[in-house]
Amino acid sequence: MTVLRKHLFDLPEGMIYLDGNSLGPLPKSVPVRVAQVVAQEWGGHLIKGWNVDGWMAQPSRVGDLVGRLIGAPTGSVVMGDTLSIKVYQALSAALQMRPDRRVVLSDTGNFPTDLYMADGLIRQLGHGHELATVDPEEVMDAITDEVAAVLLTQVDYRTGRMHDMAAITARAHAMGAVMIWDLAHSAGAVPVVLAACNAEFAVGCTYKYLNGGPGAPAFIYVRPDIADTVAPALAGWLGHAAPFAFDLAYRPAPGVERMRVGTPPVLQMSALEAAMEVWEGVEMADLRAASIALSETFIREVEARCPGLTLASPRDPAQRGSQVSFRFEHGYAAMQALIARDVIGDFRAPDIMRFGFTPLYVDEGDVVRAAEVLEEVIGGRLWDRPEYMARQRVT
Amino acid sequence: MTVLRKHLFDLPEGMIYLDGNSLGPLPKSVPVRVAQVVAQEWGGHLIKGWNVDGWMAQPSRVGDLVGRLIGAPTGSVVMGDTLSIKVYQALSAALQMRPDRRVVLSDTGNFPTDLYMADGLIRQLGHGHELATVDPEEVMDAITDEVAAVLLTQVDYRTGRMHDMAAITARAHAMGAVMIWDLAHSAGAVPVVLAACNAEFAVGCTYKYLNGGPGAPAFIYVRPDIADTVAPALAGWLGHAAPFAFDLAYRPAPGVERMRVGTPPVLQMSALEAAMEVWEGVEMADLRAASIALSETFIREVEARCPGLTLASPRDPAQRGSQVSFRFEHGYAAMQALIARDVIGDFRAPDIMRFGFTPLYVDEGDVVRAAEVLEEVIGGRLWDRPEYMARQRVT
Repeated sequence: MTVLRKHLFDLPEGMIYLDGNSLGPLPKSVPVRVAQVVAQEWGGHLIKGWNVDGWMAQPSRVGDLVGRLIGAPTGSVVMGDTLSIKVYQALSAALQMRPDRRVVLSDTGNFPTDLYMADGLIRQLGHGHELATVDPEEVMDAITDEVAAVLLTQVDYRTGRMHDMAAITARAHAMGAVMIWDLAHSAGAVPVVLAACNAEFAVGCTYKYLNGGPGAPAFIYVRPDIADTVAPALAGWLGHAAPFAFDLAYRPAPGVERMRVGTPPVLQMSALEAAMEVWEGVEMADLRAASIALSETFIREVEARCPGLTLASPRDPAQRGSQVSFRFEHGYAAMQALIARDVIGDFRAPDIMRFGFTPLYVDEGDVVRAAEVLEEVIGGRLWDRPEYMARQRVT
Repeated sequence: MTVLRKHLFDLPEGMIYLDGNSLGPLPKSVPVRVAQVVAQEWGGHLIKGWNVDGWMAQPSRVGDLVGRLIGAPTGSVVMGDTLSIKVYQALSAALQMRPDRRVVLSDTGNFPTDLYMADGLIRQLGHGHELATVDPEEVMDAITDEVAAVLLTQVDYRTGRMHDMAAITARAHAMGAVMIWDLAHSAGAVPVVLAACNAEFAVGCTYKYLNGGPGAPAFIYVRPDIADTVAPALAGWLGHAAPFAFDLAYRPAPGVERMRVGTPPVLQMSALEAAMEVWEGVEMADLRAASIALSETFIREVEARCPGLTLASPRDPAQRGSQVSFRFEHGYAAMQALIARDVIGDFRAPDIMRFGFTPLYVDEGDVVRAAEVLEEVIGGRLWDRPEYMARQRVT
């Protein structure tokens, strides 16, 4: 069944947007909802909004909407903070679960902030932990019985290379390690079944494939059977069992609610909640099939049209998330030239041109057209202009 | 000079809002700005918004606006996350500055989440730190040369009792301790001069007196002379010296920027930035004078009209922030009755009726009228009704 629903998004006329893996476009349901929260809820109800408008329960309510897309049971996901913070919470809790072990295992395909947060935590603790970062293909062998926690991003942000969550989690558990998955490039992109993979923790962001808007809140999943026992390092009042009792002593809330920290960002949370409406009736298996079809078309078209580009993503779609990357020596300038022609992808150093495929609002025609424009840019050396060569920060 | 500017706020008709110390009302500049960020910036520019709309620089830009109100030099304040997270960052950095000491000193007047975060950090570190929590009046004597960090909220959230920042900071420094001030009930409420008080860290929220909206981002100040040396425990990619180099190793950004963590909440940040416009031309000394005048009127009127209520706040305005609290056995029900009559304050267990005074949008007439309605409620025992007695969560 088709999952295409372009009419639910407010995409600029004429733009082909292949960067939904970085920041999803605006769902049409969002502006009205945000305006309502601002004017009627905050403006009209003021402090009463926390109760009458359900602001306080929103992080759990939205967590369940996200949970459906990642195969997490109701009540096992809660929203808040940023992905970096959620990585920190998960890893800190994981290390407390394995006090006798000292190795945190990750890979060089992880998004840097995950490594930075792990490194920061290790330095802060000062307990002699070590962050071991191996190549993605070496992860399985590197999981030994010295590893306390395995911290991986399922889909590589540069190449789209995808880890086998079930196999790696099984290996981690066989070695007695705690498993943490970062689903930044998975949630809303590929089918994930957390309940089946059995990982202890999963975290992710919602401004990519979930279209929650710039700076949308992150999510954290804690496996239900351990959620009542994990130790929250960031012991904020909204993760307290009774926040409004204002007790002087901390007592964690039951379940994943203990991973809440401070006052939730109501405007962002409401934008995200409205954005989640586009997922109604979408089955992840259908989305995955459409994503693979789009990606395969793009690879075929680009390879036929642009022989100077080298596929950086796995050729086997089963090994790939919902993005396709090509290496090109002048990739930065070429991407600028492409963007100037309203085909939006992005660039990752040193030479990766990155394209995300989001079947909710991208169709076959868009993909072919994108390849045509790329051919004009590459074949015509349109990238070779000073205004595209000037190196700027790219997000 | 008057600081009253009611016309800049969208207050519900007939409501007297004395709860701006919990959630400030909607500034009229906000809805248009938020709608623009959603539709034009996110919707129209998508990923390009990070550069063309200045989203990436916003946390520092807004930090400077907040900094002006708390006497912090340009470039010493950055926005992000929640107040709980900022408390954690400051305290973690402080403990690393005093590795030979084990005591964190706070007081029972601190907002609970500060104590919870400190407790969570101490448990997580497992280095034998101790959280010593004394009565507010005992703080000075409790600052000994065993104290690593003093963590205090300047203005007590229940009573409005205000600490002398300069005196306590001087004592902390004389004893070799690091000073952290939580300015949740100070920023935009009372004059604060961080540059003069010389504290190492200050943190605060912006949804109270700064009217940033529900879940508005927090702020952190780091004294400029130490900002390049503090160790960020939450080492997120946006606190990296070169976030878009995607290095595998963390290298902290210069100055307070290292206290940034993850992707900033652009919608909330924009709401706050627009809300800060109401402060243009406001001098904190004028605001303070107006706040004291309003508070003194309220105390005088309430004591004359409601002899059953006991002042819970210091009588001396110099010892008081911008709120006034009264104890009343049936305070919860009385507050509900008051709210039903459109005079909005709030309640804090066990018996505190709390009223915030915010001279930007509250005037003498409002205060006298609020006291009149309170007299009707108390004198007429209007609180003694089942619908007001039913105990509910109050935020």
